[in-house]
Amino acid sequence: MRSPAADVIDQQWSYSVRAARQDSYDVNYRRDLLSLKDPTLADALRPGASVLVVTTPSVDRLYGDRLRAYLAAHASQNSFTHMVLPCSEADKSFEKVLSICHKASDAGLARQSQVVCVGGGVLLDIAGLAATLFRRGVPHIRVPTTLIGMIDAAIGVKNAVNYNQSKSLLGTFTPPEACFIDPSFLATLPRRHLQCGLAELIKIAVMCSSELFQKFEARADQLLLGATGIDIDLSSDLIQLGAYWTLKELELNLFERRELFEEQSYARKLDFGHTFSPMVETSSGHSILHGEAVAIDMAICAELAYRMQILNKSARTRILDALLAVDLPIHLEGLEAGELHASLESVVRHRDGNLNLPLPSDIGSAVFVKDLRDVSATLLREALETLGCYAARRDHELDRPQLMHATR
Amino acid sequence: MRSPAADVIDQQWSYSVRAARQDSYDVNYRRDLLSLKDPTLADALRPGASVLVVTTPSVDRLYGDRLRAYLAAHASQNSFTHMVLPCSEADKSFEKVLSICHKASDAGLARQSQVVCVGGGVLLDIAGLAATLFRRGVPHIRVPTTLIGMIDAAIGVKNAVNYNQSKSLLGTFTPPEACFIDPSFLATLPRRHLQCGLAELIKIAVMCSSELFQKFEARADQLLLGATGIDIDLSSDLIQLGAYWTLKELELNLFERRELFEEQSYARKLDFGHTFSPMVETSSGHSILHGEAVAIDMAICAELAYRMQILNKSARTRILDALLAVDLPIHLEGLEAGELHASLESVVRHRDGNLNLPLPSDIGSAVFVKDLRDVSATLLREALETLGCYAARRDHELDRPQLMHATR
Repeated sequence: MRSPAADVIDQQWSYSVRAARQDSYDVNYRRDLLSLKDPTLADALRPGASVLVVTTPSVDRLYGDRLRAYLAAHASQNSFTHMVLPCSEADKSFEKVLSICHKASDAGLARQSQVVCVGGGVLLDIAGLAATLFRRGVPHIRVPTTLIGMIDAAIGVKNAVNYNQSKSLLGTFTPPEACFIDPSFLATLPRRHLQCGLAELIKIAVMCSSELFQKFEARADQLLLGATGIDIDLSSDLIQLGAYWTLKELELNLFERRELFEEQSYARKLDFGHTFSPMVETSSGHSILHGEAVAIDMAICAELAYRMQILNKSARTRILDALLAVDLPIHLEGLEAGELHASLESVVRHRDGNLNLPLPSDIGSAVFVKDLRDVSATLLREALETLGCYAARRDHELDRPQLMHATR
Repeated sequence: MRSPAADVIDQQWSYSVRAARQDSYDVNYRRDLLSLKDPTLADALRPGASVLVVTTPSVDRLYGDRLRAYLAAHASQNSFTHMVLPCSEADKSFEKVLSICHKASDAGLARQSQVVCVGGGVLLDIAGLAATLFRRGVPHIRVPTTLIGMIDAAIGVKNAVNYNQSKSLLGTFTPPEACFIDPSFLATLPRRHLQCGLAELIKIAVMCSSELFQKFEARADQLLLGATGIDIDLSSDLIQLGAYWTLKELELNLFERRELFEEQSYARKLDFGHTFSPMVETSSGHSILHGEAVAIDMAICAELAYRMQILNKSARTRILDALLAVDLPIHLEGLEAGELHASLESVVRHRDGNLNLPLPSDIGSAVFVKDLRDVSATLLREALETLGCYAARRDHELDRPQLMHATR
């Protein structure tokens, strides 16, 4: 229906609204982004725009002065409002989103303004959602400071907060204007958070790239430096390949449009490790971190895949050993098969009516188990038992205490 | 950058993420949508889907039983959760959005579920935003029950809530899955709300269609029936033409993408009547309804356009008389030019740094005043004085009390 004169006026008139959108953004890898010699970050600011910079207390403590000095040196024509937002997975709430919107409102942010978010996945989730909602969308730039952020959370288009005891229940898909990955932020990241990032790296490798998996295996025991920090020379290409494969996979269906999924089904390789983990994470009261829960989930899935004759034993063992090599948990004392099985119903709801469980069929490739009935509570119980034994044996071999038992 | 082996690994690696989205939805005009003989609305439900139906207390009181009977008769394979949400422009808040999300969560809504919103612009704004956020987007269907909804608020893609004393500060652009316009809902709409809808109709006609304006002029004094209701036979083509021109105008840039605006400037014809009105509406504590504020705004703009020699006197007078013909206000006692002028600064922020004030250059066509300096407080004061005199003279001629004075 396009002409009003001829056929608008009718008892059963209808108008078909159509619109196309093109989105693009660059994910840039730059070492020493805050170096006074590098204008890259400042070049991403719009000339003269008001900019709201949102960080976390730890980012502000470790990098706040350098960031302000950098912006003063390179972006003196912009006006900046700084906000330091305490946040954690346990309080990734709408109240935090609104507090950023309040700040944006008080600072008089316009639609041509920008929000620069510097922090971990939680901060980027919260600030990305705030930028999405404020004036129906102000452009935002993401600077992840955690390994998970650099290879996963910060480089895609999702944002979300938890609600009504459900993880990431409310959010949107909103592309950032740009994203910058600077591994030098990792120098101050605590070991446990680096391990969590490596769990996501293993996820990507197992699902998408045997090359990445081999590189990781070969260097796993040299990557982590001590209480904080990662060997940047050894990890640089791992981070880039991790980001590359994540983006390549996301780009297939960036906005998770139903009509673009095969058989209109929410089957996504990158859901590997993200099936049982929300329950593990939430039921631990967030004492178990996201990446740790992902590691436990991947171990369960590797063992399931082996028992379902989808994955051979050697590949299954390489996956478990890769997790253990960077001290990630593969098992959690007290975790119950019945509880895990029950949590799959909410997974089915989230994946549009099917389980769509990604399982490795080899290192670097995946299959999907569509039907919930193929994953019984009994099968899960057997997998958990095996993993408990495997973890205990390896702990014994390596003469170290069993992982994570005390946190639950 | 597409191949990881060759050029991923670098000090200055970057990946350009690209994605295209196609959106489409139908706006359908159907008389007696809830007739048991018409399966149209039920046909828009996905087979077997869980459906959350959100209405207002007055919609529930007037149409709740018919709606439930209709759904029971035509959609027995769907499961329904009903929610009645009290809401008004004054409390179009995020708390309301979250209360719908809570209901959706408790009802176990999945991504393949649907939200059906039946109500006025405020309800559709709130419920549309809730559907946007829940699980990062559940499809929603809009059924406007007000005239404003049918020709304006409900048929586009915007949703929003008020925040920090700013009207519609937080929201998104989210296309509905479908929209149904049924004028029979107007039989129970109070006269004042119908007048508000007619203000938006005049807005569309003045900006886009002299044909629509002439049709309106010719029937204005026969449209409204009494305390409630509008002559459906006389208004049917006006509603369809109003919706048609609104959609045609919105479709030019449905998501208000900056790059698609001429000169990357937020110049939109349908902003006519929406420049001074947010201030008028908000500062009255919402005792002045949206459409009434729009009418006052259009009168000011018509007078400004005449004084700026953009619009001739006869066209300006036709616009004022069209508003008066359906008892809409063109003037508000106590409204101050200085206050109006000051409010333009926030308009400039919302329109990306320019005023972009749409003014009629004739009935059915518009020009934009880009620069804030072209609209002085003095010019506004003179316009207000003239409108006050014009309103008083017409009130006197028609022997009726002056409009709106008491509400402020």
